[in-house]
Amino acid sequence: MKKALAFDIGGTKIYSTIINENGEIIGEIDKFSTPKSLDEIKKVLQEQIQKHENEVDIIAIATAGAVNNQNTAVIGSTGNLPQGYNTIDFQSLSSKRVFLENDANAAAWAEYKIGASKNTSVSVLLTLGTGVGGGIIINNNLLKGKSGAAGEMHFKMYPDKRRKCTCGGWDCFEIYASGTALKIDAEEMLNDKNVTTYDVIEGVKNGNTKMIEVLKRWQNDITTGIKGLADIFDPDCVVLSGSMAQFVDVKKVEEEVNSDIVTPPTSIRLATAGNYAGMIGVALLAMERGS
Amino acid sequence: MKKALAFDIGGTKIYSTIINENGEIIGEIDKFSTPKSLDEIKKVLQEQIQKHENEVDIIAIATAGAVNNQNTAVIGSTGNLPQGYNTIDFQSLSSKRVFLENDANAAAWAEYKIGASKNTSVSVLLTLGTGVGGGIIINNNLLKGKSGAAGEMHFKMYPDKRRKCTCGGWDCFEIYASGTALKIDAEEMLNDKNVTTYDVIEGVKNGNTKMIEVLKRWQNDITTGIKGLADIFDPDCVVLSGSMAQFVDVKKVEEEVNSDIVTPPTSIRLATAGNYAGMIGVALLAMERGS
Repeated sequence: MKKALAFDIGGTKIYSTIINENGEIIGEIDKFSTPKSLDEIKKVLQEQIQKHENEVDIIAIATAGAVNNQNTAVIGSTGNLPQGYNTIDFQSLSSKRVFLENDANAAAWAEYKIGASKNTSVSVLLTLGTGVGGGIIINNNLLKGKSGAAGEMHFKMYPDKRRKCTCGGWDCFEIYASGTALKIDAEEMLNDKNVTTYDVIEGVKNGNTKMIEVLKRWQNDITTGIKGLADIFDPDCVVLSGSMAQFVDVKKVEEEVNSDIVTPPTSIRLATAGNYAGMIGVALLAMERGS
Repeated sequence: MKKALAFDIGGTKIYSTIINENGEIIGEIDKFSTPKSLDEIKKVLQEQIQKHENEVDIIAIATAGAVNNQNTAVIGSTGNLPQGYNTIDFQSLSSKRVFLENDANAAAWAEYKIGASKNTSVSVLLTLGTGVGGGIIINNNLLKGKSGAAGEMHFKMYPDKRRKCTCGGWDCFEIYASGTALKIDAEEMLNDKNVTTYDVIEGVKNGNTKMIEVLKRWQNDITTGIKGLADIFDPDCVVLSGSMAQFVDVKKVEEEVNSDIVTPPTSIRLATAGNYAGMIGVALLAMERGS
């Protein structure tokens, strides 16, 4: 059975393990703080690769940032990673094929192969964390676009410039649906700059009506965004993953979405492929498509 | 060379002609008012089919409404066509294969094969008319979704219920980007229920500053919608067709879109496949995919 050495490179942590063709994690999970320089990032990868490349068929890297259609490099800049990250020649790090994919795309593929969207023809994954990522699968293929950057969840929630997104644009879905967005909602609604996402979640648990209102607004914005995606893609399901997904009332969102779209009903589901979905997805993709 | 008998069935008119594999119109253009009953609609089709089916290889019908993934029937209801339109057994009308596709999808295919999006890998078509239609092509395939209804341009422009769409939902792109939307913009901005789309267009031609402001708002909403589609699909181009497309300042929209998306720049273009793009597209699709 084929095996891949998998990485997940994010703004704060780099994870690594070995994964087989069934999507099973068969190695230890190694974990590193993401270094601040390109050379140190390369060194982390290189050491892992030297240790394990003889045991595996391919190197599979899930990464923040958009990945080109050749799955060889990151395109453009990625907020939380050092400048020049897109210039790294990942293939030079191993004699085995090195295969990259965007982390949200990789997570979507994991859900499609072994998780919540298994056996669907069209699915949309939203990762709700500090930011928001997206991965869309259509008839057994990831939606990549002309340059590999498709699936960005920066469509607009208002046409008239209200809230600046971390991308520099205005009113993107991300800045209304992320964990950061929940904090901004709370700041605005409670007129308190110091309130945190954690405060909202704790407040909701304790039945605080103001915090419940804040969470409702956030969930309503997520619902609004999903309605648009449902009308555009007519998907079998929309899968919610990431650290914030657990705070969404999935049944309620499903009900509201299906009451206000022109396409046939869709299903809203929580992700089931687990915390290492990024590594699992990119490993499965690499073993299937990368040779 | 293969030939198709093509129809375009809309809420007010039915068109019919013969089209060859190059997408050339080689018959007369026949035109009928769309009858009010199912039987009369079938009769119009039947008479044309009886007259021409021996000259052609396939019957190709572009129609209002979503078409299923088997290209045999309309699914759900279609506003401007008689109730029960989705129950018509189109295949029973001819001994030749009868192939259906949604009119905006068909127009998108025509632009892709012989028009403005030729030789692209990912393109989005918007038909701006009384309503708004959409057709999306990804790697030589129409985006159809789980049931055939994908490409509906009813994503939301606001999350907080401002303007009711003709679909019954709230704040859909369609009700901010259509010809109808331009009239509503004018009504709201001029506080005049009797102003028409035509008044706005005439006013703009005559340099009326208020009307120019109305058109600007409408164009700004179209721009906002295209930004979202660009971030989701990372398309080579977005093609604008339909009777209202000519009033859009395409260069301006392209500039604004590309200044506020996270994906690489896209190109905004006017359609070039002409008024019969629906028939041309469905004929080409039917001859390529329908046998």
